Amino acid sequence: MAAISPLAPAAFPALTAIAGVRLAATESGERYKGRSDLILIELAPGTTVAGVFTRSQTASGPVEWCRAILEGGAARAVVVNAGNANAFTGAAGRTAVRRTAETAGACVGAGPEQVFIASTGVIGEALSADKIEAALPGLAEALDGNAWEAAARAIMTTDTFPKGATRTTTIDGENVTVSGFAKGSGMIAPDMATMLSFVFTDAAIPAPVLQAMLARGADRSFNSITVDGDTSTSDTLLAFATGQAKHGPVTRASEARLGGFRKALNEVLIDLAQQVVRDGEGAQKFITISVSGAASARAARRIGLAIGNSPLVKTAIAGSDANWGRIVMAVGKAGEKADRDRMSISMGGVLIAEHGELHPDYDEVQVAPHMKGRHIDIAVDVGVGRGKATVWTCDLTHGYIEINADYRS
Amino acid sequence: MAAISPLAPAAFPALTAIAGVRLAATESGERYKGRSDLILIELAPGTTVAGVFTRSQTASGPVEWCRAILEGGAARAVVVNAGNANAFTGAAGRTAVRRTAETAGACVGAGPEQVFIASTGVIGEALSADKIEAALPGLAEALDGNAWEAAARAIMTTDTFPKGATRTTTIDGENVTVSGFAKGSGMIAPDMATMLSFVFTDAAIPAPVLQAMLARGADRSFNSITVDGDTSTSDTLLAFATGQAKHGPVTRASEARLGGFRKALNEVLIDLAQQVVRDGEGAQKFITISVSGAASARAARRIGLAIGNSPLVKTAIAGSDANWGRIVMAVGKAGEKADRDRMSISMGGVLIAEHGELHPDYDEVQVAPHMKGRHIDIAVDVGVGRGKATVWTCDLTHGYIEINADYRS
Repeated sequence: MAAISPLAPAAFPALTAIAGVRLAATESGERYKGRSDLILIELAPGTTVAGVFTRSQTASGPVEWCRAILEGGAARAVVVNAGNANAFTGAAGRTAVRRTAETAGACVGAGPEQVFIASTGVIGEALSADKIEAALPGLAEALDGNAWEAAARAIMTTDTFPKGATRTTTIDGENVTVSGFAKGSGMIAPDMATMLSFVFTDAAIPAPVLQAMLARGADRSFNSITVDGDTSTSDTLLAFATGQAKHGPVTRASEARLGGFRKALNEVLIDLAQQVVRDGEGAQKFITISVSGAASARAARRIGLAIGNSPLVKTAIAGSDANWGRIVMAVGKAGEKADRDRMSISMGGVLIAEHGELHPDYDEVQVAPHMKGRHIDIAVDVGVGRGKATVWTCDLTHGYIEINADYRS
Repeated sequence: MAAISPLAPAAFPALTAIAGVRLAATESGERYKGRSDLILIELAPGTTVAGVFTRSQTASGPVEWCRAILEGGAARAVVVNAGNANAFTGAAGRTAVRRTAETAGACVGAGPEQVFIASTGVIGEALSADKIEAALPGLAEALDGNAWEAAARAIMTTDTFPKGATRTTTIDGENVTVSGFAKGSGMIAPDMATMLSFVFTDAAIPAPVLQAMLARGADRSFNSITVDGDTSTSDTLLAFATGQAKHGPVTRASEARLGGFRKALNEVLIDLAQQVVRDGEGAQKFITISVSGAASARAARRIGLAIGNSPLVKTAIAGSDANWGRIVMAVGKAGEKADRDRMSISMGGVLIAEHGELHPDYDEVQVAPHMKGRHIDIAVDVGVGRGKATVWTCDLTHGYIEINADYRS
């Protein structure tokens, strides 16, 4: 077991229960010994669902299943197992998904097309549904509206801490809550560190509205983080709205009365996404990259990710080196418009380069204390427009090599 | 000084002299002490030129200069300095380039628009042309048609060995030779490890024909390698044809009588590109990735580069781990068409996965001896078409972190 990340929060937060959501975790015996590795989540009738998935061309069987049933817009259960990703497993993998959905559906009184499945762990190994099916009735007996931390722990693989977030706001003066949890450690190692996230609310949000909000929120959270630039076969973000809150009907994502809810949802997504970065394999520093002056927000995010994915930038920061030349390089390779002769770069609030040249007053001594800290801020203006984005990443250290160059044993 | 890469060739090859090409190297005193860091290459009147440059949006002043004068199609000299990349240096950097070109041109009796300039080293530091200008007359006195190794050594930065290659062939029964040298160690660290390559031939090839051949050859050599996926501000590949060989006139790149020449040029480019990978920062293993069954050759190369750039694939290989699941992941993220259920993967000639599943006869023991060696072969068929490409890379080791997390001091 790896030591807990130095960037971990002090404790798992106290997540507010969501009316209509109950959870349970257990040890299935599938792969891990002495820890829980399987969860069942029951959702009240009437729950709507939205999802965002990996763009991988080699997506796993569970991802294909969720994509297909998402069109129904309704959810009654979620089953997640850790240890085996059921990816690259062909027809046998598809059968395991369907059997799991059927058995879990029977436990909660729903059809399989309302049961969402996610799997994380080694890929290419057959997943037998036997142990999962055997464990589901017991899980159904143990369902509990407060079992958040147990659920968050059960889906961990190389994660060093469980990740949760919660916010309460109002719609029409009625309290509504968003609570969620996630796992992820590489962004993303398909081997043992896939990113999964599940977010729940008691608000009554029609599936298409929830989908619009989730897609937008994902762009500014899970799609704005990187640990190593690798994309999982299994990345899954699902949001569920049980509709138990008392507010009036919702019809469009852009309604002004949903402002608080949108903010709460986005904050939960960003909080969870940042926790994934804080648990990045080998991470010693949390890096915030703010890009401005780009042709569009999308261009700004691509530039931010080019900086955040650059091994040279990440190793420099691991070495507490304010190596701004590597940031210039990363901006240059992003494939988005940038005006070299109008670019400016700051680190830790210190202006380093401006108008495409080193600032005459800059001295590395000014920024050295910031670079030695746990939180590194990089701000880049690329001088061509008004597009802005923020991206989060971690440094690239010997710890990453140690974790990933080991045998899978 | 870092130890020489374990993947280095036994010795610098004996490069055949090219009629019309003379070289000299010296210590300019600009940055390095006790080693040469500046070269002048003189090219006979009538020499044609072709070039391929970084696609970076933050390209250096010397790259902008070369791009501009390339349109003239004629070259009389090349000046290369190591230690300062003259990148992100604004107007002062442009002035340094122009003064260097004027002084070098005067030394060989040519205008500045026929003098190509390349710089490699730290970026964002002002480069004074004073020391370079002072050294040029002495270099012009020392020009020598056999000074290949001295020139290849003088342009090294974090390189651990000088890189050269040579081939002789015929056009119309007349001998023609291609000789060249290169530097590069990260692909590409703008800080101290930019990729530069200079290739020379005595063949008489018009500039547009040479450009077509070079662009095609670069795609299968320097554009098919990666060390860390980072793109330099200064990447420069230049080819020069002095026209001193006795063959008949050439008008098109596709002429059948140029078959031997094209092959010789491509072999020199691939040889030099592979040497850059062999000198990849921290490299312990040389990896050949063959992709087939892609929608096009271009798609195959992108898939190969996605595999070759994946930190998870590269760290697994550093650990001698045949972690084929990470190859599935990398194929999936390449953004090119792939059919998960028709994919096959082999390593070291051992079939691991086929039809989207682990091969039933596969046992890791079969491939373990191959994985422990210095040369790793990966073959992937993505099952959608007939596009093929080969990409070369190296593993990602603690050595890479050590080299790049250090202070620049």
